[in-house]
Amino acid sequence: APGMELSYRSTISIYKSILDEFNPALENLVYLGNNYLRAFHALSEAAEVYFKAIEKIGEQALQSSTSHVLGEILVQMSNTHRLLNSDLDVVTRTFHVDLLQHMEKNTKMDVQFISESQKQYELEYRHRASSLEKCTTELWRMERARDKNTREMKENVIRLRSEMQAFTSESQRAAELEEKRRYRFLAEKHQLLSSTLLQFYSRV
Amino acid sequence: APGMELSYRSTISIYKSILDEFNPALENLVYLGNNYLRAFHALSEAAEVYFKAIEKIGEQALQSSTSHVLGEILVQMSNTHRLLNSDLDVVTRTFHVDLLQHMEKNTKMDVQFISESQKQYELEYRHRASSLEKCTTELWRMERARDKNTREMKENVIRLRSEMQAFTSESQRAAELEEKRRYRFLAEKHQLLSSTLLQFYSRV
Repeated sequence: APGMELSYRSTISIYKSILDEFNPALENLVYLGNNYLRAFHALSEAAEVYFKAIEKIGEQALQSSTSHVLGEILVQMSNTHRLLNSDLDVVTRTFHVDLLQHMEKNTKMDVQFISESQKQYELEYRHRASSLEKCTTELWRMERARDKNTREMKENVIRLRSEMQAFTSESQRAAELEEKRRYRFLAEKHQLLSSTLLQFYSRV
Repeated sequence: APGMELSYRSTISIYKSILDEFNPALENLVYLGNNYLRAFHALSEAAEVYFKAIEKIGEQALQSSTSHVLGEILVQMSNTHRLLNSDLDVVTRTFHVDLLQHMEKNTKMDVQFISESQKQYELEYRHRASSLEKCTTELWRMERARDKNTREMKENVIRLRSEMQAFTSESQRAAELEEKRRYRFLAEKHQLLSSTLLQFYSRV
């Protein structure tokens, strides 16, 4: 049955691609995401310190006889930027909690889940294939011996084959769904991040 | 003349405040601004690497049988963020060239300029004060001696005093202008930075 063989190889290759490509890529993404997050925090801190210094100069100007209004402008500017900064902290929190932590948890659990799914699939496929082969060999032997129970065995082989066909195509669909779910998770989570960022920008 | 004395102290205190407070604060601001800029660049790099990794996963999805559209979404998302990132580089360039470099150049030149202005002002003030004092003492002596040239000397003292009054009030106005110019420079430059940032956000 070349159809089942093809389906088997396709299913196994999907499991392999989740294990060997998708999950390591996600793990790497979590690592890069944590770097990205640290860079966000560092920027937020640097901005805070910078605008704190601007505020101090503004307060100095407020005390001068010549530049009271300019001092007000500088203090106000500093306040605006620091408010902006605290809004940006909401974005980084979303990024951290809703995305990175979620991705990290998922990859850790997924490696075990997918390896076990693959192992179980291989076992059941081999079990079904060997049952089918045994019955087929038995059928040939019975046909050669003109056994009176040939018809029964023939029906048995047909049933086993159709069951196996159903099993391989269902398993393939299940594996495809697993793959698709993972890419969808990634796309949805990043669209959430994008919309949080856009919300932040439009609030400016 | 308590008015001139007051004006003198006020002028000197403005020069001192520019030298001892404004310029060191500006120097510190340049230092903090360079840290801020480095944090911007680090964030830009971290984002670039992160979205490059997203793009790679998207390309993997493009090659899968199940997740072609999700792959397109991931690749597109990565491109959007990387475009945003290159826009942000324009902001940091403005910050660097139009603000930090300008502030750095100004503080370096200003220390010498203000010290010299202050020194010259003190010299001229002392010179005028001692001339006035000399003539006033001479006038007293002449009045006591009922000298016939008293009237001439009186006019001389009045002229010197009014010239010195003009000099101290002009000097004070000049020093106030210098102080105001410095705060205005700072406020204007930062409003330029703010507007560049807002332009960037509204383009998102």
